Amino acid sequence: MNSQLEALIARIQPLDAEAQRAAQERQNRLTKPQGSLGRLETLATQIAGITGKTLPTIAHKSIVIMAGDHGVVAEGVSAYPQEATPQMVRNFMQGGAAINVLARHVGARVVVVDMGVAAELAQPGLLQRKVAPGTNNIARGAAMTREQALQAILVGAQVVEEQMAHGLDIVGTGDMGIGNTTPSAAICATFTGQSPADICGRGTGVDDAGLARKVDAVCRALEVNRPDPRDALGVLSLVGGLEIGGLAGIVLGTAANRRPAVVDGFISTAAAMIAVGLAPQVRPYIIAAHRSQERGHRLMLEWLGIEPLLDLDMHLGEGTGAALAFSLAEAACKVLAEMATFDEAGVAEKEG
Amino acid sequence: MNSQLEALIARIQPLDAEAQRAAQERQNRLTKPQGSLGRLETLATQIAGITGKTLPTIAHKSIVIMAGDHGVVAEGVSAYPQEATPQMVRNFMQGGAAINVLARHVGARVVVVDMGVAAELAQPGLLQRKVAPGTNNIARGAAMTREQALQAILVGAQVVEEQMAHGLDIVGTGDMGIGNTTPSAAICATFTGQSPADICGRGTGVDDAGLARKVDAVCRALEVNRPDPRDALGVLSLVGGLEIGGLAGIVLGTAANRRPAVVDGFISTAAAMIAVGLAPQVRPYIIAAHRSQERGHRLMLEWLGIEPLLDLDMHLGEGTGAALAFSLAEAACKVLAEMATFDEAGVAEKEG
Repeated sequence: MNSQLEALIARIQPLDAEAQRAAQERQNRLTKPQGSLGRLETLATQIAGITGKTLPTIAHKSIVIMAGDHGVVAEGVSAYPQEATPQMVRNFMQGGAAINVLARHVGARVVVVDMGVAAELAQPGLLQRKVAPGTNNIARGAAMTREQALQAILVGAQVVEEQMAHGLDIVGTGDMGIGNTTPSAAICATFTGQSPADICGRGTGVDDAGLARKVDAVCRALEVNRPDPRDALGVLSLVGGLEIGGLAGIVLGTAANRRPAVVDGFISTAAAMIAVGLAPQVRPYIIAAHRSQERGHRLMLEWLGIEPLLDLDMHLGEGTGAALAFSLAEAACKVLAEMATFDEAGVAEKEG
Repeated sequence: MNSQLEALIARIQPLDAEAQRAAQERQNRLTKPQGSLGRLETLATQIAGITGKTLPTIAHKSIVIMAGDHGVVAEGVSAYPQEATPQMVRNFMQGGAAINVLARHVGARVVVVDMGVAAELAQPGLLQRKVAPGTNNIARGAAMTREQALQAILVGAQVVEEQMAHGLDIVGTGDMGIGNTTPSAAICATFTGQSPADICGRGTGVDDAGLARKVDAVCRALEVNRPDPRDALGVLSLVGGLEIGGLAGIVLGTAANRRPAVVDGFISTAAAMIAVGLAPQVRPYIIAAHRSQERGHRLMLEWLGIEPLLDLDMHLGEGTGAALAFSLAEAACKVLAEMATFDEAGVAEKEG
């Protein structure tokens, strides 16, 4: 493994057990029956462990959207034309996409990174980090070189370092890339061993024929490339995507900085699988925002062993689920910090 | 039925189909695959129908907490002493409870109403609307008179009218009352016909013996009082609670004013059952905030036929789930109003 990647992974330490203990102890003294706020309590305790702070705060929030194109669209796997990728990047920069609305709603900034869009983009504010102008067609060979896969991950980690300079308490992952549910399904199939037919969903809305082509493309991608689940960097380079590599880097970089990484839907969770494949100790830093309606997402979450916060039949990507989860994480931390204890409020405790 | 209650119910009209149609039509032109925001889309369309506005906004938000005590605590059904009710009301007024933190987080005001606390309360800002100083023990007779049940509902509706004067786009229901999962379970058993043993949960945390006493108390309440599910006012008066009646009035009054009523957990949903029992047409005005961990809540939601938004293992009450749901409702309406359409953004639409 590359020394920069090794150094990044070495920075990911176990959660702070003492901060978790102190947070849990405080939860039990707050004016509510113990455990009655359910996931809000465990979430705040997890964030205490991640950050090493008994009373963590969520003020500075970033959604990082990684954009990239996919050679596999030549197989007819998507309902939208490839030019929708750069068009949606422009939409992000102009503030008109769903993620812009939801990020404003929760007070998060949106950072958009060109990891590998197959078009020249010159939008003010867009981070230009193109590793290649799209991947190769995974149904016919490797998506990218191993060197490019490594570079994509390191770019992602570098973006987190830059965001840290602006203040950063939580990071959400977002994706844009026409065709990217196909490599994500291939990654899922590689790690879980499940059949592509049980993983592939309709993405942005392919019809039955398109879905059949997609399943076929994933089957061929696995046959041609033979990705080995014990070699996560190899999986990324053979059947992945440039934005997926960037998002894996975001997850690793966020954990290296002791911040929670809120993972969005199907594509982001494929990236999280790559990150966990490279560094299993990153897992407790991950918060699964929601269960996407995209078919194989449930299998991904089960493989990760992480229960999502929300289940709202969403399947848009862009980090939309992550933005909604930010609000829950912030609420959880505020409850921990701001509620009165039984002593402070003079409220009778449980009897017996 | 009383003429004031009849007049209130008569104001509850069907949703505005034209506003719903226009909202749905706009959803389909926004820069996202159709339906990809799942519940956020259906929620915004529902609120359009409720309010009669194609682009509804959620700015003015109220959580109304109704507090009341319960004679049935004499049966040993709660883990907390009855004095926790007035103590928690003071905690609400001082801003130290979970609902205060969550309401601040989502920008909602908290309105606290003394519907029937068994203690004198003189907190500044508390709405003094005590119908009686607690209910009678439902395991031995009627909770209250039919006249008191009616009064409780009308007080709730009146509180909504007062809130309207401050600006009001959405209302969330909250409850406080030691012992109030017991009458709520009795209401659930009456309407659903399910057995108390399948409905009663641990509330604020009773042990096995307490749970057995609770199941027994509900069985006796049903035996002694014989509530008739076709007479919802009778159900409230025989096995209900004063805060439950107030919350039923909140639901009816909110719908009468064409605003969405966000119903919280077990107690609030029992109140919603009373409201729907009185006026079935109120149902589409109700948004179920979350699925509570309290055992019978699932049965209540199934009887109402309403799918909750959140499922976070919470079971605190106070309107805590409703506050979190406010954020989703606001997000849903912002998406509808603020996202760019395909035409505006110059993004390619779905092929074929």
